[in-house]
Amino acid sequence: MKICALAGGVGGAKLASGLQDVVPPGDLSVVVNTADDFDLWGLHICPDLDTVMYTLAGISNPETGWGIVNESFATLNMLERYGEETWFKLGDRDLATHVFRTHRMRSGETLTEVTAGLSGALGVDNALLPMSDEPVSTVLETAEGRLEFQEYFVRRGQRDEVLGIELRGIEEARPTEGVLAAISGADAIVLCPSNPVVSIGPILALPGVMEILASSSVPKVAVSPIVGGRALKGPADRMLASLGHEVSATGVARMYAGLVDGMVIDRIDENERAGIEGIGMRVLVTESVMRDAEDRARLASETLEFGAGMVAR
Amino acid sequence: MKICALAGGVGGAKLASGLQDVVPPGDLSVVVNTADDFDLWGLHICPDLDTVMYTLAGISNPETGWGIVNESFATLNMLERYGEETWFKLGDRDLATHVFRTHRMRSGETLTEVTAGLSGALGVDNALLPMSDEPVSTVLETAEGRLEFQEYFVRRGQRDEVLGIELRGIEEARPTEGVLAAISGADAIVLCPSNPVVSIGPILALPGVMEILASSSVPKVAVSPIVGGRALKGPADRMLASLGHEVSATGVARMYAGLVDGMVIDRIDENERAGIEGIGMRVLVTESVMRDAEDRARLASETLEFGAGMVAR
Repeated sequence: MKICALAGGVGGAKLASGLQDVVPPGDLSVVVNTADDFDLWGLHICPDLDTVMYTLAGISNPETGWGIVNESFATLNMLERYGEETWFKLGDRDLATHVFRTHRMRSGETLTEVTAGLSGALGVDNALLPMSDEPVSTVLETAEGRLEFQEYFVRRGQRDEVLGIELRGIEEARPTEGVLAAISGADAIVLCPSNPVVSIGPILALPGVMEILASSSVPKVAVSPIVGGRALKGPADRMLASLGHEVSATGVARMYAGLVDGMVIDRIDENERAGIEGIGMRVLVTESVMRDAEDRARLASETLEFGAGMVAR
Repeated sequence: MKICALAGGVGGAKLASGLQDVVPPGDLSVVVNTADDFDLWGLHICPDLDTVMYTLAGISNPETGWGIVNESFATLNMLERYGEETWFKLGDRDLATHVFRTHRMRSGETLTEVTAGLSGALGVDNALLPMSDEPVSTVLETAEGRLEFQEYFVRRGQRDEVLGIELRGIEEARPTEGVLAAISGADAIVLCPSNPVVSIGPILALPGVMEILASSSVPKVAVSPIVGGRALKGPADRMLASLGHEVSATGVARMYAGLVDGMVIDRIDENERAGIEGIGMRVLVTESVMRDAEDRARLASETLEFGAGMVAR
């Protein structure tokens, strides 16, 4: 039973680690958004990919969800002494990832190859797949002008209202062979509870991805990142609102209409069940907030059973 | 009274810091060897320049002479986990220097400009001058074949007998304007107790440097890095021997014959005084081993007085 999960950062990483816990090693492929990748001091940084990697490797910082546990910041403090801006909190261990990756990519390896090397070295025995080996950059239109994603997300603390989104490079980028194979070879596809616009959105926007998803007859299930009208983490709620979407599990379901067969929503949103079923999706109502490893595994397990049950019917 | 010092790594850094302590701020220029610079994980590393910079900034590791005091190695340990070789002991704070430098140089700054920025940020108020903005690489011929300098020096622990030396790129490299100005504008020139072959040698081998030194009529004094027939640090003694030089203060004096007017030698080598004077140099015999800041300042002061005394005569 091969599972393919599409994920962004922290929320996606949590469900991916739950899936890892409940499927046999090697049966999970996680396709990760790379549209928020950026360069800092000439180092190539892939925030979502690293968040998922550190989480699957069991070394992520449980307080933040991103970064490495027990991290230190000696390099960053020294860079600050050299007069550099240090709004992006680059830890010493995390830096090794970027140094290694940047060097290998300059030497001709693809991001996919480098990611396999890094995640393998960290003991991750499932496939961690960047959505593309070509650069895509999320640029946000705001009242303050156009902002690069990390500028908006980290530097400015997501305080700007997002009026529009451009995925720069998306037309020229291609999903990797590995991504296409993971999607077309999956027995179930899970859209993790990540931001539908800037995390799952770029993966779906890659040329060919919607077509291969549409042509797949396996169960496709999305877990809502909106619970009780709010994003559990990050600016998804405000972003959905300012872009004209309804900020609810139903709103997310509408964005995935025609693509997924089932939505997993939280108990707090149970009253939205009928509305989502009205869009033509099946609905699983459960505890969807992942507070610990047990929550992750349970939600992953329930999500997979939900998908399997849809096939049986 | 402008002083120009030529220096390599640890020994040169110590005397340079002594000179810094005894001359008014801004009156010292230290020209540093860059022929052992190399790239590691795509980062540009300048071991001698950084040793001198950290020493002048008062943040060097007093145990080793190189690196930064109270350094940590979290990034390096993580790189090791990624399967990388970690024979070059890159500290977390030190790494900031290389990340900053590499990024700025890729953005078009010269090594000279970047070094001024770094040393200024660390509060160094004298000029720290890389010998050249063009790459020069020391390659050592050994029984094991040709070795890059850091390969020989760090990775293989200087265990190979050096049979020959190539300064790759030296013909095309040029001393910087700043280096030429520092030498020609100096009231005294000090060759620090650094390896005459691989530290001072590359500076002297740059096209034009010997000529400008020869045309200068100010006192030129060298402090012997060989004391009691041994190098205080590093492989200078074995290197001199295998390259056919006498391993003594006299041997060093012969290498600098016609270039410097005076040699500073250690008390233990007092019996070499007459021989060195026979080469045509004046000799200062003193305690030349620098164990602490007081030693450094005293040796610097004595060296400058020795030079000034030669002019008076």
